[in-house]
Amino acid sequence: MRIPADLLKLIRKNKKFLITGHVNPEGDSIGSCLALALGLKKMKKNVCVLSKDPIPDILKFLPCSNLIKNRIPAGNFDVLFLIDCNTMERTGFKNLRAKTTAVIDHHLARKEHLLDIGWIVPEAAAAGELVYKLLKALNIPIDKKISTNLFTAVFTDTGGFRYSNTTPESMKISCELIKAGANPWDVTKEVYENISFNRMRLLTMSLSTLEKRDDIVWMTVTRRMLEKTNTSAQDTESFVDYPRKIKGIEAAVFFREKNNNLYKVSLRSKGKVNVANIARIFGGGGHARAAGCEINGSLSDVKQKIFKAVKNETKGYKSKISTY
Amino acid sequence: MRIPADLLKLIRKNKKFLITGHVNPEGDSIGSCLALALGLKKMKKNVCVLSKDPIPDILKFLPCSNLIKNRIPAGNFDVLFLIDCNTMERTGFKNLRAKTTAVIDHHLARKEHLLDIGWIVPEAAAAGELVYKLLKALNIPIDKKISTNLFTAVFTDTGGFRYSNTTPESMKISCELIKAGANPWDVTKEVYENISFNRMRLLTMSLSTLEKRDDIVWMTVTRRMLEKTNTSAQDTESFVDYPRKIKGIEAAVFFREKNNNLYKVSLRSKGKVNVANIARIFGGGGHARAAGCEINGSLSDVKQKIFKAVKNETKGYKSKISTY
Repeated sequence: MRIPADLLKLIRKNKKFLITGHVNPEGDSIGSCLALALGLKKMKKNVCVLSKDPIPDILKFLPCSNLIKNRIPAGNFDVLFLIDCNTMERTGFKNLRAKTTAVIDHHLARKEHLLDIGWIVPEAAAAGELVYKLLKALNIPIDKKISTNLFTAVFTDTGGFRYSNTTPESMKISCELIKAGANPWDVTKEVYENISFNRMRLLTMSLSTLEKRDDIVWMTVTRRMLEKTNTSAQDTESFVDYPRKIKGIEAAVFFREKNNNLYKVSLRSKGKVNVANIARIFGGGGHARAAGCEINGSLSDVKQKIFKAVKNETKGYKSKISTY
Repeated sequence: MRIPADLLKLIRKNKKFLITGHVNPEGDSIGSCLALALGLKKMKKNVCVLSKDPIPDILKFLPCSNLIKNRIPAGNFDVLFLIDCNTMERTGFKNLRAKTTAVIDHHLARKEHLLDIGWIVPEAAAAGELVYKLLKALNIPIDKKISTNLFTAVFTDTGGFRYSNTTPESMKISCELIKAGANPWDVTKEVYENISFNRMRLLTMSLSTLEKRDDIVWMTVTRRMLEKTNTSAQDTESFVDYPRKIKGIEAAVFFREKNNNLYKVSLRSKGKVNVANIARIFGGGGHARAAGCEINGSLSDVKQKIFKAVKNETKGYKSKISTY
């Protein structure tokens, strides 16, 4: 995890910085961008933070989240930082320009995509861990605002220190961030204990569609449910975690009706099934444990397609259906 | 957090140990007892671990949980350890005897209850943190079995590093435990992703009773629901966490019908309401943020009693009811 000397030099010798994360930003993207921006401001740098997509409501508590703009400001910039992503495409912006472009990320990059300076550490659980190391190397004091942003980055990208990407380093850095002022319960309340009453009603409706076939469990949200509960697609975020919690299953699936005969499908694996392979069959993508795609057809057709695909991915399923 | 010299001496010079946690044991009680037992076995001690109540299903994965007995063995013991509790009453056993009794706990003890040797550290998030320090002080190598037990102890007692008791020390110790072999995702799968299909059906039924009055939210499980889903009272464990997740509320309440006109009431606070005061009115008890009691009456009477009590505890509520 050694920080490239070029990266430190780049920061020290330049003045005007543009920082952006990726589209559909989550805790790691927003928290890491803000922490880096706050750190650079302490070095008296001129900093602008961008996000193409709006900040999710549950992340608006992040200190200084109001600094984030969604339009590229006029003027010339010395350095453009891509955080938690490593291609221009992932930023969602088309005309980002600066003298030098640098990447701080923990996602694997393709060679042809490499930008001017890249610090890519796939073993890091979150980009926030890298930004923490960078700020320390620059001798920037980590205050409560910076530590809350970075703690949220690590906390959310490890699923609250639960996912298999959680390392001793994640814990050590979080120890330092709590010492520096980050408050785990305050972050938890904002991120995980902040469900609107209507969203909870939507979850209840969706849970009542839960269905188990062999070791696959799925549940659905229809457009009618969104209407009835006055909620939107964004409110279904992380619903797929509920079927995943069921004992003895290998794959959890969440169907969201997007249009007539069009379903957004979220897939989760408990470890044995590679759901990225399943998503790719239908033109989607993702990781071995979390992937997604869109499929045309009636709900029962779509379910059947997914069921067959999971069966092919992990041979030997016997068909047995439980519903309620 | 200095370890009493007496405690180290007691372990070093004695041979036969009896270890017990508390009734209704959870991750901290079981994990800490097992870790201490495994550590003492490495010192060639003769160790017996007791639990009056059965090990919850979700904790049976803990390494060497099969060592735990629920009857006091014959013979004389040099040392009796009370872990994660500090009174004989809390152990559930009546005739526990040894030459010396020692306590390792993080709950405040009353003076009159103090036993021979006590190491009580209320700032510790879990008794597991203390057992970790003790094993280190005794130079016992922390292997995968011990670290999994201790990680589960700290992980569960901090609500997965979320509750306000989570300290930098909790993170630092967990960092060492992961290095020593504890696997956060393996523990998560066992503890939090291990819900039976029937239990999820029960949760769905209970969620559909969710009701909001001002900033209080409650939900119910009836005996009929348990019958219909073939589940038991134990399956309602932590259901109260769901209403607690709702945005903008101060108190979450879970009612479980025990008998005709008798309800078990679990209360949770987001921080402002002291729910222990409310529980005490009805002969129950607990902490400021988590408390419980039993109330006689019809469900609507019981709800009204709780509503009034919360109103008195935090003046100025306006009555407005939302249901679905």
